[in-house]
Amino acid sequence: MEHLNIPQFLGLLVVILGAAKLCGALAKAMGQPTVLGELVAGVLLGSSVLGLVNPEVEVVHLLAELGVILLLFMIGLETDLHKLLQVGLTSTAVAMIGVALPFALGYLACRLVGLDNLPSIVAGASLTATSVGITARVLSDLGHLQDPEGQVILGAAVIDDIIGLVILTVVMGLTRGESVSAAGVGRITGVAFGFLVLTLLIGSFVVPGLVSLVSRISLPGTKTILAVILAFGLAWLADRSGSAVIIGAFAAGLLLARTPQASEIEHGVTELGNFFVPLFFVSVGASVDVRVFNPLDPANRSTLVIGGVLIVVAIAGKFAAGYAAPWSQVRKAVVGVGMIPRGEVGLIFAQMGLASKVFDAKLFGAVTLMVMVTTFIAPPLLRALFPITESDWIPPEPDGIEELVTGE
Amino acid sequence: MEHLNIPQFLGLLVVILGAAKLCGALAKAMGQPTVLGELVAGVLLGSSVLGLVNPEVEVVHLLAELGVILLLFMIGLETDLHKLLQVGLTSTAVAMIGVALPFALGYLACRLVGLDNLPSIVAGASLTATSVGITARVLSDLGHLQDPEGQVILGAAVIDDIIGLVILTVVMGLTRGESVSAAGVGRITGVAFGFLVLTLLIGSFVVPGLVSLVSRISLPGTKTILAVILAFGLAWLADRSGSAVIIGAFAAGLLLARTPQASEIEHGVTELGNFFVPLFFVSVGASVDVRVFNPLDPANRSTLVIGGVLIVVAIAGKFAAGYAAPWSQVRKAVVGVGMIPRGEVGLIFAQMGLASKVFDAKLFGAVTLMVMVTTFIAPPLLRALFPITESDWIPPEPDGIEELVTGE
Repeated sequence: MEHLNIPQFLGLLVVILGAAKLCGALAKAMGQPTVLGELVAGVLLGSSVLGLVNPEVEVVHLLAELGVILLLFMIGLETDLHKLLQVGLTSTAVAMIGVALPFALGYLACRLVGLDNLPSIVAGASLTATSVGITARVLSDLGHLQDPEGQVILGAAVIDDIIGLVILTVVMGLTRGESVSAAGVGRITGVAFGFLVLTLLIGSFVVPGLVSLVSRISLPGTKTILAVILAFGLAWLADRSGSAVIIGAFAAGLLLARTPQASEIEHGVTELGNFFVPLFFVSVGASVDVRVFNPLDPANRSTLVIGGVLIVVAIAGKFAAGYAAPWSQVRKAVVGVGMIPRGEVGLIFAQMGLASKVFDAKLFGAVTLMVMVTTFIAPPLLRALFPITESDWIPPEPDGIEELVTGE
Repeated sequence: MEHLNIPQFLGLLVVILGAAKLCGALAKAMGQPTVLGELVAGVLLGSSVLGLVNPEVEVVHLLAELGVILLLFMIGLETDLHKLLQVGLTSTAVAMIGVALPFALGYLACRLVGLDNLPSIVAGASLTATSVGITARVLSDLGHLQDPEGQVILGAAVIDDIIGLVILTVVMGLTRGESVSAAGVGRITGVAFGFLVLTLLIGSFVVPGLVSLVSRISLPGTKTILAVILAFGLAWLADRSGSAVIIGAFAAGLLLARTPQASEIEHGVTELGNFFVPLFFVSVGASVDVRVFNPLDPANRSTLVIGGVLIVVAIAGKFAAGYAAPWSQVRKAVVGVGMIPRGEVGLIFAQMGLASKVFDAKLFGAVTLMVMVTTFIAPPLLRALFPITESDWIPPEPDGIEELVTGE
């Protein structure tokens, strides 16, 4: 990994934040979600275009992770657990079908184009998990996170993130040649879901008292920092317990959302998020290699063919999952489209496949192509599904305050 | 350098932020500046006590630097350039005497205890620069940054930081065995000061228009992020121009302080600062090795003797510098004490001395001892010089806003 000195680090942050803001503003001016601009900024800064941002540099990787952790924490803070549980059955159905269908279709498609069993399993697995970060941010950008559709998508994305984690653990075992028992899979699943349930149960009793205790310390910013400590602490604990860091951060947000200090905390964390979250999306964008798109290079052709098949399967599988709960009153096309982006979760599978030599460069390229297309297609598609009169999302709390202060 | 994975990084941040808040609150409860608690938290977490925080780990080092850069940026935002220039002559006199006296006394003292010429020069040089970060934060904690004394100290600390930078460049040449010409020293000095003057002149014309242009983008947090980009950008430019990163950040703050958006920017940057600034002070504290304090270990005795001499010289020299401007109406004892802490600047000299083999372990220990004592003695001394009825500093803007929102 590359080492950075202070001026290099400062220069890198200036470039990333500047490009993210500029492309975000352009995306907004074109009626698209801001996050799409940040992803494009990442592609432009990444190794295949300008070569200014390498997402594998340690400090970039770590700060980008803080970004997605803070994002899920903020999403949790804006989420009403009761509303989420009300659509729990629908979310679960969407998540289950949205994992099973893309996996089965992806596996079969890979076998049909002549791939071996193990690469087909890993490629199928890479299609399973929706990127909750990208979907939640798009809904937030569009102001529809609180809609029933938004709650179903959020719940389903969290559930399939946990399922994705289980699949990742199992598939990692397979790539190392280990045999995986049903009991082992059950144990991993139990731990991953158990963490969320236990944290919410215990936290409901502990967190409100803790927050009101700490609120007595009259140092500036104490409540925000306590909230960040809780988010990072539960993210750490989630990892240690065999769940995912973003699940821990989301749980921390859900717990604090129910305290009287929630709006004050959200306000402070939003300022931190404005700094860290774009680092995540730029980093996701920067890991995209646009050169695999070039059909003039014969080496890319089989990548483009397999990639094309995976893209069709990836979109069709998740879109169909939107209709998995026929009893539900939500707009099923919105749910289906909202589940499409694979983002960083798909890339983790692709990188694991490459590192374990289960994927060759072509299959790796095909899977990253699928990730890119599903990630970039979802924001404009979702945008198109909502009435065009809706304005972009501006967080109500901070802006209201800014107006109070500056009179703008 | 050590590499961190995500859970390790999260655990580290939880420990640092938690300890900083806890010790900061305890310091405040004991009537001391909060920053003293954060420094003590760093000592406790550092390698010589608990061994949880290693300030040389790349990401810790980089984030701590962002902390001091944001701190100087925030100090600049709170500073009225006209007020600073009004006490400019006093500040300059305090800075000049405060560099010359400790250097001369330190050099002579080292020669008297039998040290060679070059080690004596480097040890003397390590006594020259006040840590503007620590002094500014203490004055800010105590609510006296806007006092005439605060302005004189701030101005003098910025000037002697630039002088310290020139001395550092010259001394680095000497340790490499290069001969240093008067013209060379003049050129380095001109560049270091020229950067600040040119930046302020050009920036005064460019920055207000830039800010009002960017303010038209109605994306959340745009003004804060633009301010951060300007701070990091000028910090980067300062380094590239041969000045210091914190001078660039301070200049960015001074420039933005004069725009109508200053209070809104300060409000957003304060939330970022609450996260990053404690990382800096904990990191400074963590580089302290308390084991050199133990007089029972015979190996420490000559370190303690030389260290004791350097401490006396360091305190006396800067305290006397407080009286360098007899025409001024400010409380000279306050200025003198405010100039005492050497903080991270002294440590940079010590580390350079050790790396270039000009310092042996004993002299390195003595210089770090001097840095530790001057850094830790200044906050309680300054506290004692101000009336005890003053309450700790709470940023007026954000708190006022929180009251508006939460009704607390």
